[in-house]
Amino acid sequence: MTTLQQKIDFTVLIDRMKLIERRTKIIGLDRRETDAEHSFSIALMAFVFREYAPGADLQKTTLMLLAHDLVEIYAGDTFAYDEKGNQTKKQRELEAAEKIFNPLGEDGEYLKKLWLEFDENETPEAKYGNALDRAQPIINNIYNKGGTWLEYNVRADQLLKRMEPIKNFNTELYNFLLDNAKKYINFD
Amino acid sequence: MTTLQQKIDFTVLIDRMKLIERRTKIIGLDRRETDAEHSFSIALMAFVFREYAPGADLQKTTLMLLAHDLVEIYAGDTFAYDEKGNQTKKQRELEAAEKIFNPLGEDGEYLKKLWLEFDENETPEAKYGNALDRAQPIINNIYNKGGTWLEYNVRADQLLKRMEPIKNFNTELYNFLLDNAKKYINFD
Repeated sequence: MTTLQQKIDFTVLIDRMKLIERRTKIIGLDRRETDAEHSFSIALMAFVFREYAPGADLQKTTLMLLAHDLVEIYAGDTFAYDEKGNQTKKQRELEAAEKIFNPLGEDGEYLKKLWLEFDENETPEAKYGNALDRAQPIINNIYNKGGTWLEYNVRADQLLKRMEPIKNFNTELYNFLLDNAKKYINFD
Repeated sequence: MTTLQQKIDFTVLIDRMKLIERRTKIIGLDRRETDAEHSFSIALMAFVFREYAPGADLQKTTLMLLAHDLVEIYAGDTFAYDEKGNQTKKQRELEAAEKIFNPLGEDGEYLKKLWLEFDENETPEAKYGNALDRAQPIINNIYNKGGTWLEYNVRADQLLKRMEPIKNFNTELYNFLLDNAKKYINFD
């Protein structure tokens, strides 16, 4: 059990998710979304898309998605297409996880477990969660008419690699996103 | 069952939660939080504070909190201490709810039911959800050394009214918040 002060401290800590900017922009707006906003979207998407993941526990998936980016409070957001940043990402995030989760006792242990499980991408909840985590910025880029793909000159091979968790998860969703992405990224 | 296009449309719609500014500011930052950011905070708090609500179903509470402010996409945020705005709030929100939830079929019906349940504040999940919804901006104002209470000259009687769902929910949390609020609001 955690004390009230531990609960309050954690509430104060997660407020910092509102300071972390992602690359993705909000649909129709020239502002990048924050980690808190991204986490909100995919946590609610978990309910709406759940028929695609009949084997995944919804409560576990939702909590995993609310917690999956908390390490960025200390490790920062690493842009998906930043190859150098991604080489040091794991170590930076492991150190951050200790600082984020350890002060919350058993509850922190559980959230850390969910974060590691998300990263390993093996369980039904992790596969579902990773597919949503990858799908949401793609949806935003499609509805922003290419959005940050054009801004950062993202190539087809890079996008296809990012979409692998969606491809392995659900063909209908994958094909929808790919067909629409082809309007903005050159696949020839 | 909803079609993929309905799921995508809903994902696009909830992105607008990132356009709605609340009055509360992010801790340590001179920026107001968005509805999406507020919803993220309280959805994750539902896990951390759950020992205070042993009778509440966590999955239902979490989803209720992710959905409880969606009507503001069309109805706008009504500041807690705006008495005039609060007179027309219910009607504006009921009309907004039709536009938000009806396009999502049965899933929309369920989310609308959760929103109404939250508003009626009778079930264990609604009582827990309302307490968190009221506690989070208070925590931010405490950690912002008075924050928007000072900015808007909020009076003790107004704050006490806002805190009623917390008082009815948990004495320890209520007393902690009240004792800290007294540092910034005059209770004489």
